[in-house]
Amino acid sequence: MYFSLFNVVFLILFVEISGQSGTDVTDLLTALFTTNSYDKRVRPKSSQVTATTVDLDLYLVGINDIDEIKGSLTTTAFLYLGWIDEFLVWTPASYGGIAYFYIPQSDIWKPDITLENGFSKLKELGNSFINAAVTEDGQVFWKPFEVFESKCSFDTKYFPFDKQTCKLSFVVWSSGIQDVNVTLWNNGINLDHYEENSEWTVLSTAHIEASDAAESRVTFSLNIKRNAAYYVMNIILPVILLSFLNVLTFALPADSGEKISQCITVFLSFAVFLTIVNAELPKTSGSIIGYYLIFQLAMGTIVITITVLQLRLHHRKDPVPPSVIRLMKCLPFNKTSAVNSPDKNKVENIQIKNTEANDVETETTWSDVTSSIDFFMFWTVLSIVVISTSSVVAILSLH
Amino acid sequence: MYFSLFNVVFLILFVEISGQSGTDVTDLLTALFTTNSYDKRVRPKSSQVTATTVDLDLYLVGINDIDEIKGSLTTTAFLYLGWIDEFLVWTPASYGGIAYFYIPQSDIWKPDITLENGFSKLKELGNSFINAAVTEDGQVFWKPFEVFESKCSFDTKYFPFDKQTCKLSFVVWSSGIQDVNVTLWNNGINLDHYEENSEWTVLSTAHIEASDAAESRVTFSLNIKRNAAYYVMNIILPVILLSFLNVLTFALPADSGEKISQCITVFLSFAVFLTIVNAELPKTSGSIIGYYLIFQLAMGTIVITITVLQLRLHHRKDPVPPSVIRLMKCLPFNKTSAVNSPDKNKVENIQIKNTEANDVETETTWSDVTSSIDFFMFWTVLSIVVISTSSVVAILSLH
Amino acid sequence: MYFSLFNVVFLILFVEISGQSGTDVTDLLTALFTTNSYDKRVRPKSSQVTATTVDLDLYLVGINDIDEIKGSLTTTAFLYLGWIDEFLVWTPASYGGIAYFYIPQSDIWKPDITLENGFSKLKELGNSFINAAVTEDGQVFWKPFEVFESKCSFDTKYFPFDKQTCKLSFVVWSSGIQDVNVTLWNNGINLDHYEENSEWTVLSTAHIEASDAAESRVTFSLNIKRNAAYYVMNIILPVILLSFLNVLTFALPADSGEKISQCITVFLSFAVFLTIVNAELPKTSGSIIGYYLIFQLAMGTIVITITVLQLRLHHRKDPVPPSVIRLMKCLPFNKTSAVNSPDKNKVENIQIKNTEANDVETETTWSDVTSSIDFFMFWTVLSIVVISTSSVVAILSLH
Amino acid sequence: MYFSLFNVVFLILFVEISGQSGTDVTDLLTALFTTNSYDKRVRPKSSQVTATTVDLDLYLVGINDIDEIKGSLTTTAFLYLGWIDEFLVWTPASYGGIAYFYIPQSDIWKPDITLENGFSKLKELGNSFINAAVTEDGQVFWKPFEVFESKCSFDTKYFPFDKQTCKLSFVVWSSGIQDVNVTLWNNGINLDHYEENSEWTVLSTAHIEASDAAESRVTFSLNIKRNAAYYVMNIILPVILLSFLNVLTFALPADSGEKISQCITVFLSFAVFLTIVNAELPKTSGSIIGYYLIFQLAMGTIVITITVLQLRLHHRKDPVPPSVIRLMKCLPFNKTSAVNSPDKNKVENIQIKNTEANDVETETTWSDVTSSIDFFMFWTVLSIVVISTSSVVAILSLH
Amino acid sequence: MYFSLFNVVFLILFVEISGQSGTDVTDLLTALFTTNSYDKRVRPKSSQVTATTVDLDLYLVGINDIDEIKGSLTTTAFLYLGWIDEFLVWTPASYGGIAYFYIPQSDIWKPDITLENGFSKLKELGNSFINAAVTEDGQVFWKPFEVFESKCSFDTKYFPFDKQTCKLSFVVWSSGIQDVNVTLWNNGINLDHYEENSEWTVLSTAHIEASDAAESRVTFSLNIKRNAAYYVMNIILPVILLSFLNVLTFALPADSGEKISQCITVFLSFAVFLTIVNAELPKTSGSIIGYYLIFQLAMGTIVITITVLQLRLHHRKDPVPPSVIRLMKCLPFNKTSAVNSPDKNKVENIQIKNTEANDVETETTWSDVTSSIDFFMFWTVLSIVVISTSSVVAILSLH
Repeated sequence: MYFSLFNVVFLILFVEISGQSGTDVTDLLTALFTTNSYDKRVRPKSSQVTATTVDLDLYLVGINDIDEIKGSLTTTAFLYLGWIDEFLVWTPASYGGIAYFYIPQSDIWKPDITLENGFSKLKELGNSFINAAVTEDGQVFWKPFEVFESKCSFDTKYFPFDKQTCKLSFVVWSSGIQDVNVTLWNNGINLDHYEENSEWTVLSTAHIEASDAAESRVTFSLNIKRNAAYYVMNIILPVILLSFLNVLTFALPADSGEKISQCITVFLSFAVFLTIVNAELPKTSGSIIGYYLIFQLAMGTIVITITVLQLRLHHRKDPVPPSVIRLMKCLPFNKTSAVNSPDKNKVENIQIKNTEANDVETETTWSDVTSSIDFFMFWTVLSIVVISTSSVVAILSLH
Repeated sequence: MYFSLFNVVFLILFVEISGQSGTDVTDLLTALFTTNSYDKRVRPKSSQVTATTVDLDLYLVGINDIDEIKGSLTTTAFLYLGWIDEFLVWTPASYGGIAYFYIPQSDIWKPDITLENGFSKLKELGNSFINAAVTEDGQVFWKPFEVFESKCSFDTKYFPFDKQTCKLSFVVWSSGIQDVNVTLWNNGINLDHYEENSEWTVLSTAHIEASDAAESRVTFSLNIKRNAAYYVMNIILPVILLSFLNVLTFALPADSGEKISQCITVFLSFAVFLTIVNAELPKTSGSIIGYYLIFQLAMGTIVITITVLQLRLHHRKDPVPPSVIRLMKCLPFNKTSAVNSPDKNKVENIQIKNTEANDVETETTWSDVTSSIDFFMFWTVLSIVVISTSSVVAILSLH
Repeated sequence: MYFSLFNVVFLILFVEISGQSGTDVTDLLTALFTTNSYDKRVRPKSSQVTATTVDLDLYLVGINDIDEIKGSLTTTAFLYLGWIDEFLVWTPASYGGIAYFYIPQSDIWKPDITLENGFSKLKELGNSFINAAVTEDGQVFWKPFEVFESKCSFDTKYFPFDKQTCKLSFVVWSSGIQDVNVTLWNNGINLDHYEENSEWTVLSTAHIEASDAAESRVTFSLNIKRNAAYYVMNIILPVILLSFLNVLTFALPADSGEKISQCITVFLSFAVFLTIVNAELPKTSGSIIGYYLIFQLAMGTIVITITVLQLRLHHRKDPVPPSVIRLMKCLPFNKTSAVNSPDKNKVENIQIKNTEANDVETETTWSDVTSSIDFFMFWTVLSIVVISTSSVVAILSLH
Repeated sequence: MYFSLFNVVFLILFVEISGQSGTDVTDLLTALFTTNSYDKRVRPKSSQVTATTVDLDLYLVGINDIDEIKGSLTTTAFLYLGWIDEFLVWTPASYGGIAYFYIPQSDIWKPDITLENGFSKLKELGNSFINAAVTEDGQVFWKPFEVFESKCSFDTKYFPFDKQTCKLSFVVWSSGIQDVNVTLWNNGINLDHYEENSEWTVLSTAHIEASDAAESRVTFSLNIKRNAAYYVMNIILPVILLSFLNVLTFALPADSGEKISQCITVFLSFAVFLTIVNAELPKTSGSIIGYYLIFQLAMGTIVITITVLQLRLHHRKDPVPPSVIRLMKCLPFNKTSAVNSPDKNKVENIQIKNTEANDVETETTWSDVTSSIDFFMFWTVLSIVVISTSSVVAILSLH
Repeated sequence: MYFSLFNVVFLILFVEISGQSGTDVTDLLTALFTTNSYDKRVRPKSSQVTATTVDLDLYLVGINDIDEIKGSLTTTAFLYLGWIDEFLVWTPASYGGIAYFYIPQSDIWKPDITLENGFSKLKELGNSFINAAVTEDGQVFWKPFEVFESKCSFDTKYFPFDKQTCKLSFVVWSSGIQDVNVTLWNNGINLDHYEENSEWTVLSTAHIEASDAAESRVTFSLNIKRNAAYYVMNIILPVILLSFLNVLTFALPADSGEKISQCITVFLSFAVFLTIVNAELPKTSGSIIGYYLIFQLAMGTIVITITVLQLRLHHRKDPVPPSVIRLMKCLPFNKTSAVNSPDKNKVENIQIKNTEANDVETETTWSDVTSSIDFFMFWTVLSIVVISTSSVVAILSLH
């Protein structure tokens, strides 16, 4: 509708305009505003009973900023508004063929449309330096360019693979719907002038005429998706590496004297990453990645606890009681351990001896017990980490 | 009162309006403002002796931000004000049946109502772009939409399970109560347009006409509750895990050579969490969680001190004096320890020998002494941590 | 003075007002401003030779913020100003008994009083929405509510037990003292509307008429005291705990293999606390707590140095030279150590042997030497820490 | 064009001006603005059919700030605009020889040119305090000084050796190209007044008249280069040092008991540097230095893993199986190791013995195995680090 | 000049003023502005050929903030401007003896002087609330109080002992020098109202009339010096302590098992201090303290490398080859070491044995080799650190 209208204007323009001069414009402005005593407080309808219909389009220019913590979407955009001003109609022939003119927006009646879900107090659109174009049949075209900071509640459950839907709701604030009625012009959000944001991709847009009994309202919505690559590289990857380091604690022999060092350092690193992730997100729980980090923190505590108990056993100097030896034998892992061991013979010997003479306690030392625990825990924790991590990654990326 | 009034207006409107035109509106405005020489500095009462009564309602739209450190509550809200302007009365029949009109707020008299407990200098409500609606009988309806940053003193004792009460106090600033009197319209804070804040929940609202002898004032109050889930997950849970790691120091054998590493790392982690918690809160002491962290820091120091002394004993090479052995025997914990030990026989043997031959000092080594201390301290500190932590959690969540 | 004046106004008001109507007010305003061609640029004195005296009071409402680093005090307050406007005098009887009226502050002459020691460019007090009250005898009452950000140089020597004195200096900017003269009204800063700040307590206030030959000025000063509890809990207490941990290094036996770990970790923690304290304070040296932390850092270096040397000695395998043994014997601490030792016999034996056969060097090992140093240093450093810490705490809290 | 024009003005000035007085100026202004009823809303063309051409130059004064994360370039600059106002033409002789005058910019018609790709809502250029110069033939010269915050998408792939191209696009906002046509004056961005930015160097500038069918537009572009020295010193150098420390882990003997300490500390340091680098860059992946740090983090994990396995082997007490010994012999590195060893004889002996008697397992201990791994890994990892680091440095600095 | 002028005004004042009333002032203002139709757009010169000379002084009130990273100096100051307005001249006798009056700055012609090197768009000086004083002979005195944020490029080479020179350049923006000419009044920057900044000291000030052919300009410059005490205490002192700790690594015996811990912790601490120092400075390399820290970081790497190699040697179990023993003997340090050793006999014995029987390799162990390296490196690194640190301190403090 808009382009056709405007083209008509231009056609008229290049046909009719011939002898129009500056004086003609002055005469026209004087006639319309002074002689007719135009009052911009009066809605420009001959019959005040019917509402003035305002057509509205949103041209999105860019996404300035998205602040998940504050819950705000800051966009630059311009609105394209059009309506009929029945008091600004003239015969071009009488004024040297003038088919349209520009007039500062503050000189004419404007609908009091404003962003409803903003962060600041209601502001008038445009400013005194923006002109509106008026055509001979009273059509007014107005193109205020604005920065809109609108409220948007972010659901960061699937962070950093989240999709968000943010709304920009424009309402006629003071006038009732029986006076000013705002409707969509063409098809909602126009992305012709849109410049890509590097962090967020616009998936789709939508629009709705959401008027109710008392208020006239048009709502545009943006469906956006976070570009997760940065967070995958800088948060998820390091966290996965850390999880692996946590598992490695059980590969470290008790004699090295650095088991506690290793696992407590990894524990602290998880705490640091938890802080980094939390700084990105609003202070409401719910992100899977946050839960995952808490889970890893708990895993870290378990790893430390088991390691401490292992060391307690490792440094015992008394003989291993038969019950423990029997327990070790029963474990399927112990055998696997023996099989995997590069030194099969010795282990087999021990086992033979154990079956032969259970009371020969000196054969099985506490070191062997801790080794068994190491082996058992290594594969258990590794399984847990692999399963949990791959589940989380799957849920996040495939949701 | 408000809805009925407005409905009446609409009823009149859809009945009476018939031939009203733009010119009628212009005529009416000219008659009211120019012919009657309306002076917006004059309070619109025929008799200046009686006060103008202003009805006021607050429509809360959202909580933008709560800053505990600054002590501010930032809300978006609009006020609904209504009063009688005795100088804006007309007979609709004389003006084509016009029953109401819209007029920029700067063109008429307005009460000088303002937020009293704000952070900025007093500001006029609304702005030039907001219109007021005036009906034929002089009723004026005004709906200024604002962002209010009001002062609120936060009591963070029960952080993060705290409840806060914040006030928005509106006062007639320049005029005395004998001139302008502000009263509640309906029932205080209206939450019809309220959009939930993710961090805070509105529990209840209240309102009071708090005028005194000189000033007319209406105070609204918001009773809000923090959503603690985030803090439970990201502060309380890690702190509890750390407390447990602190206790584990005593489970770590002295021979591991990592006891000091463990407990000094945990000590530093408590200090880091103390910093994180403090960054969330105003710089006034008083939060239970802060005291709890200080308590844990002190516990950490005690754990380190005992561990250091243990190591001192552990590395002694001289025989254990009989007095220490006797002390160990007296301790109920020592026996418990012996019972719990997986190697009962040996310990019993030692004890039998001890009772038999007290002078056989070589039987009890310093390692046994430190083991006993470990055992005793582990259960003692664990009890303290469990009791203190569960008390704090109970107090916070059940207050 | 103010209350009496105003009460008189009210008395007059409730007696005289009888038939005053809106038209009377319009007539009065027309008479005063239009007919008399009131020019707000002209100082409202019949005789321009004498100065206009402006009475001034400051009603402190709250302390918004104190920024020690920027050196600013932000307060909300309102001024109460009164003066005589000789051109706004009327006879109430001629205007239906009107004894006073309200007028926007921009319509009348006002003294160009402004905050002199602010952070921003000079600003006019109040705004267009604030009204002044004018009584029949030309008295003008004006109550501009402002946020003042005034400069204040903070002396943080005794941080966090510091007291500060901040000034708010109001000056007549453009006019000379021979034209406009500002004086105190009642008694300076009024605290009736003051709401307590949680971090700072107002100890006392003062005021002075600080006019000089050319400029008329009134200065208010606030004497405030920091609530130290938060800093005691979160900075001083942890630092004291750290100092104690530093001392503990000497209780840790050299065989533990964690002496360096312990003291270098404590050293780093002091550095971290130094950073935290510095972030609170302006970048000028001088706070005792800062010096104390630097002192602790130096102590930490000394502890590390001695520990390193101890370890050097500890790991020597050659016999201890007699000179060192003699030195050890001379130290009074060695004997004290021996007395305190739970194993007196052995030590005494060694000493007997030493006195008997000084050349039996194998009896005294390097471990004994380091133990002696440990003992000596433990008590020395503990004394230094206790004395210095208690001195600092005493100086800070008792100054 | 500009300078010549202006010089002409001056020439005329110093020749013609003779009897011009203040009254002449007043008369001229009255004649032009009041008598001719100048309307600044009317485009100053006698024939409204042809467009008004506006010449435009940009004088860059400085680069205030470049924010890669926000994607903004903030510059101070002034525009030099010139156009013909056909309604401001006079005969100097009639007005005492006045050849030019200054007039506040708000008093005349101005083209509605504005920065199109800014961060804020469209703003009028200049302000009321800036004057335009008007010459007798209607030429208007206008020099608005502005701070422009323009959008710029930064490609930080080669950070910190990146070059960026940022645009400042000026458009005639409300009027169509058939009404106002903006063209370049001289040669685009003038750097005469440019003051060097310490962090960025302007390599070159460009300009283009980028008008389309509907809108008239001039685009200036700045080609800037980051001064990398700071980042080389403070990020790249420390990271290279850290890489080297990572390699050193394999030089550290397993017996030292500090291998894990070393490599896990280096791993954490890489994580810290990753955080520092990320804080400098927008949250989109793509910088080579970021990928390099992730690569180093992965290398760190590999180093830790191998070290852990080494320690596992090192602490084995069973004999080394012949297969492992054979594997060791096959490795070319083992021999090299022997050659480099300061104790050639012994190693050669072992090798002789090995070739002689392969079953003498006691000769080769697990320590020898870990030593071989150390040797092999040291040179492998060193090669990888040197090659990758030098590649990255080469790509960054030579791109 | 100013004070004398003003005193004259006052003298005249107290002599002549006698019967002047408010009406006289009104009459005078009417005569000057209305009757004479004063046009503030017209430069107040009877002859427009000669330029209007504006005298200018700068009264510095305070330094609000210095931001080295942004490169800005924020000052509060007021300008004292004076010029002759030939259209505001009157005969006091005709107006009851009025010798001067105050007039809002917006009512008269003012020179369009502005800060040229600011961070914001050009702003008009003063505001509507500031009055100018006009005397009977047309002298206008104007005192606009401002906050100036001026650009200043900081040379932080000698940080924190740096001296900076910042300029405030005031230019007549729109008018050419042939119309308005700004000159210095008295002697540049007046410090009578200056309040000391706690971080920076003003060393000296300068001023220059820097007009060129087209523009009239006055430049004031401030020569300021940073108070280094804070940085000495909190950055330089801790860094020196750290350097010393780095050296101590070589005093730590290899057997302690904490050499790597010590030197890698110190390395990380240097990295942390590098970050702290960098946060204070603009992102351009060049500060000596920054280079010094990088140097220390490199020293740390060297220390770690040597320590690692030492440990490699230390843990060798094969005999020391004769070549190494010979190398050790050749070193002058070895002997010094022997002399300083508290156990001379043994070392001498070894040396005797060495000279006697060079092949008795078992006498010299690898521990002795690492001890020698320790000794050699300790004194070498200590020398380097002492020399480099004292050089840096000398350069910084004595430049």
